[in-house]
Amino acid sequence: MYRKEIKVLDCTIRDGGLINKWDFSDKFVKSVFNALYKTGVDYMEIGYKASKKIISPDGLGKWRFCDEEDIKPIAKETKMKLAAMVDIGRVDPSDIKPKKDSVLDMIRIATYVKDIDKAIDLVKLFNDRGYETTVNIMAISNERDQDLDEALTQLSKTAVGTAYVVDSFGSLYSEQIEFLVKKYKSFLPGKTIGIHAHNNTQLAFGNTIESIIHGANMLDATVYGIGRGAGNCPLELLIGFLKNPKFKLRPLLDLIETEFVPLRNKIEWGYLIPYALTGILDQHPRTAMAVRQTDKKDNYVEYYDSLTNDYIGK
Amino acid sequence: MYRKEIKVLDCTIRDGGLINKWDFSDKFVKSVFNALYKTGVDYMEIGYKASKKIISPDGLGKWRFCDEEDIKPIAKETKMKLAAMVDIGRVDPSDIKPKKDSVLDMIRIATYVKDIDKAIDLVKLFNDRGYETTVNIMAISNERDQDLDEALTQLSKTAVGTAYVVDSFGSLYSEQIEFLVKKYKSFLPGKTIGIHAHNNTQLAFGNTIESIIHGANMLDATVYGIGRGAGNCPLELLIGFLKNPKFKLRPLLDLIETEFVPLRNKIEWGYLIPYALTGILDQHPRTAMAVRQTDKKDNYVEYYDSLTNDYIGK
Repeated sequence: MYRKEIKVLDCTIRDGGLINKWDFSDKFVKSVFNALYKTGVDYMEIGYKASKKIISPDGLGKWRFCDEEDIKPIAKETKMKLAAMVDIGRVDPSDIKPKKDSVLDMIRIATYVKDIDKAIDLVKLFNDRGYETTVNIMAISNERDQDLDEALTQLSKTAVGTAYVVDSFGSLYSEQIEFLVKKYKSFLPGKTIGIHAHNNTQLAFGNTIESIIHGANMLDATVYGIGRGAGNCPLELLIGFLKNPKFKLRPLLDLIETEFVPLRNKIEWGYLIPYALTGILDQHPRTAMAVRQTDKKDNYVEYYDSLTNDYIGK
Repeated sequence: MYRKEIKVLDCTIRDGGLINKWDFSDKFVKSVFNALYKTGVDYMEIGYKASKKIISPDGLGKWRFCDEEDIKPIAKETKMKLAAMVDIGRVDPSDIKPKKDSVLDMIRIATYVKDIDKAIDLVKLFNDRGYETTVNIMAISNERDQDLDEALTQLSKTAVGTAYVVDSFGSLYSEQIEFLVKKYKSFLPGKTIGIHAHNNTQLAFGNTIESIIHGANMLDATVYGIGRGAGNCPLELLIGFLKNPKFKLRPLLDLIETEFVPLRNKIEWGYLIPYALTGILDQHPRTAMAVRQTDKKDNYVEYYDSLTNDYIGK
């Protein structure tokens, strides 16, 4: 699949940090940075920009906050752009310097549909400071159509560059991805459509392909699929699939071999039955993540009963 | 997804046996049988029907041969039908009793396009003995279109019930699956189309969904995705996706918890970089399986170089 407009955004450190509280060494993050630009990745998302006044930094790694002085030793001058994510309510706009004083190129705003007005305020603020912006509409599988339509109508009137379909629960399949990408395209003429897929039912890569087919041009992925719970679309599969000659698989294989195989032996992500079940049931994976921390982590029937009995009570 | 014509065929013992030489205990196979019929699976493929005159049984488990007296203690009278697979050149037709004297309901004939005439001879023979038959055209991603078209034309003139798209190398993605399923439908009016997907690039489930969308009604899967190399479409995901009320997820979860989590700790299958690479490169996974047996099993760059250097020499 080749289309010159296609861009790949790696969110390994940002989304992977959700598993280990961003406890990545500088050496590790440098290795990721170096491999990603050699691979031809267009954007590296290096973490969250959170306010230390709102979230205590105790026990959290630096990539939860992404201070400029922490990023600078990692970032070399390459063609690869740097991005950070902000969450509604956890960012202090005064922490975000004007683009000309920052190593960051893009700020991504993660929001639920209900917070779209707050997200749009941040879009304006960060655009005015000179950044590329994206709005990542999370948990889209749980949103009502008319609410999403209204949010997209509002977004269409902003200067945001990219609007993302975010399958937070990894519960969508191809026909639903097609429906959403087509909806975004129809509501947001002239804007780039992004996809951020989770792998609960092993559909993250397939859904990313589906979104490409229907016109998404900003593609999120992570190295070896690292990410909370079942993880994300594996970058190595996406790079192997895309035909743009700028992409190289070899540096990425080296990174996986040297850094990610050992890491996967220390922290857990990927396809596991509890994550599959929350994906099938279109639920947040928080109960699955909780059960994986207990000695009942492989008691699938008991866990399934707990999920489905709860349904009867609703 | 609901369509009353959809049938699910589990090939856990047959395809999983390719990893461990069919070294499954009777207790294990009974557990699989019992869970599958409670899950509502339509067909269980219990192994291969190979001739002991052609393949020595030394070191191979009984499910490589599927003698009637070995199947009988496993099979109870249920709605679930039993299938076995034969390979061209490894079956002695005299081993296949008439259906009325067998516990088997279906014989599946695995073939390459080049052997389609031999496969058609076997279709006639097994149909005449009273069995349902399928023809599973392997390695379809490596076949030329005109050769496949000719094979399908020949198949259309037989009494075979089902013709399978078999993505042996796990190298196909949705648009290619759509193309093949539509081709089968156009060449084989009135016949059922089957799908057998491998998971090298995490697309086995997504490709199975794609084939359903375009009209495939016979769907292969295995418990927890067990199978040679990267394995197959995970049955639990397929059952969670299909909306036919006859399907139940709970007995399957119990089986995975009690039998397959321990088994996965003993034998390896599933998503691993060497299998992803053979999938991306559209190659047989045999070199990937070989490298996983060595102490270089995680030397991905070296393995990738060996695959791609070979290309240059061609």
